[in-house]
Amino acid sequence: MPHRNQMPAPQPTLRRLPGYFRFLQTLAEAGETTVSCTSIAKALHLDPTGVRKDLAFTGIIGKPRVGYSLLELRDAISSFLGWDDIREAVLVGTGDFGRALLGYELFRERGVEIVAAFDVAPDLVGQKVRGKEVLALDALGDTIRTRQIPIGIITTPAAAAQGVADTMVEAGAKAIWNFAPAVLEVPEHIILEHVELVASLAVLSSKLAVRASAE
Amino acid sequence: MPHRNQMPAPQPTLRRLPGYFRFLQTLAEAGETTVSCTSIAKALHLDPTGVRKDLAFTGIIGKPRVGYSLLELRDAISSFLGWDDIREAVLVGTGDFGRALLGYELFRERGVEIVAAFDVAPDLVGQKVRGKEVLALDALGDTIRTRQIPIGIITTPAAAAQGVADTMVEAGAKAIWNFAPAVLEVPEHIILEHVELVASLAVLSSKLAVRASAE
Repeated sequence: MPHRNQMPAPQPTLRRLPGYFRFLQTLAEAGETTVSCTSIAKALHLDPTGVRKDLAFTGIIGKPRVGYSLLELRDAISSFLGWDDIREAVLVGTGDFGRALLGYELFRERGVEIVAAFDVAPDLVGQKVRGKEVLALDALGDTIRTRQIPIGIITTPAAAAQGVADTMVEAGAKAIWNFAPAVLEVPEHIILEHVELVASLAVLSSKLAVRASAE
Repeated sequence: MPHRNQMPAPQPTLRRLPGYFRFLQTLAEAGETTVSCTSIAKALHLDPTGVRKDLAFTGIIGKPRVGYSLLELRDAISSFLGWDDIREAVLVGTGDFGRALLGYELFRERGVEIVAAFDVAPDLVGQKVRGKEVLALDALGDTIRTRQIPIGIITTPAAAAQGVADTMVEAGAKAIWNFAPAVLEVPEHIILEHVELVASLAVLSSKLAVRASAE
């Protein structure tokens, strides 16, 4: 567990690290071997000082005028984010978003493997969706309990999300990754990450409005 | 345009405002008429002082001991985020994520209407996907140019994303909302929002790792 001897990073840093990883991966594929804070900052439209601070959490220090060793930095980010350990997850709701997540091959490389999918639709149960068999929602609690699965992913309609979260919590899931457009109530000890799709849209729309008023 | 006389809010505030809106909407549907910073902060696992600062950008001030008028605050957030104006968007890539976004009914309520979808797959072109006709990718530039569409949404595989972005920029799109797992290069004047799905996962995994090491 690489985290044990490392400083916990603040959330904004954690959110930016996967973007750095992706950019470094692109450079590595292009044959680059070193990279500077300035070039990372420029490519990702960030402030170079902030980038330097973020990267310091990984324990890798750049050299003056040379920058970072690209592969060393890339692997340090991966290890810092815990991508070397695979954690199991279940997914509930095999609609469009559920399918998109089930088919997203990168998750395994990012330390999460979706081992089972659940739905209530009788015509889906027993079918394979994106390579995973869909189980009946009734089996959700037992699956989490028996296999000690730590992560529950919710991609149901808003109205079903709280009930699914309750089942996950009761069965012993430790973290919930919620894509349903609903505010969930979970006990304090549960890690809850809500992906608010329109949050990013709010930033984009607001910048567009500012620009429109300046023209 | 409600933005013109308002302070531009920082990005973290903009990202949190849609979550406040959703929570207020839930309270309104439950018949509540007032709300306090403390209860918003508690429900969304945020700091009350931060919530107060965020909400101040909307121009609405809470009353001591009473809190905010719920509907007034909800509508002020909506208006601040520009959801009263509808902006048109095109979407390229009708795979699982593309379909999920095409079928996401909330976008229109959040100020964005997807008016056309594009794909390269011959068997999809001409078909309807989630109620929208899919056009051939060749027609993307002309559609943006002729209809002066400001927003391009990219849900293609990583390898296709830069080419699609180039076409959007050349045709006059002002903002790009990118869901493809690729770092895009766009001119400085283009607004680029990249939705990094694993960013939220990185926060969740990191918290799980911290917890595991404490157990």
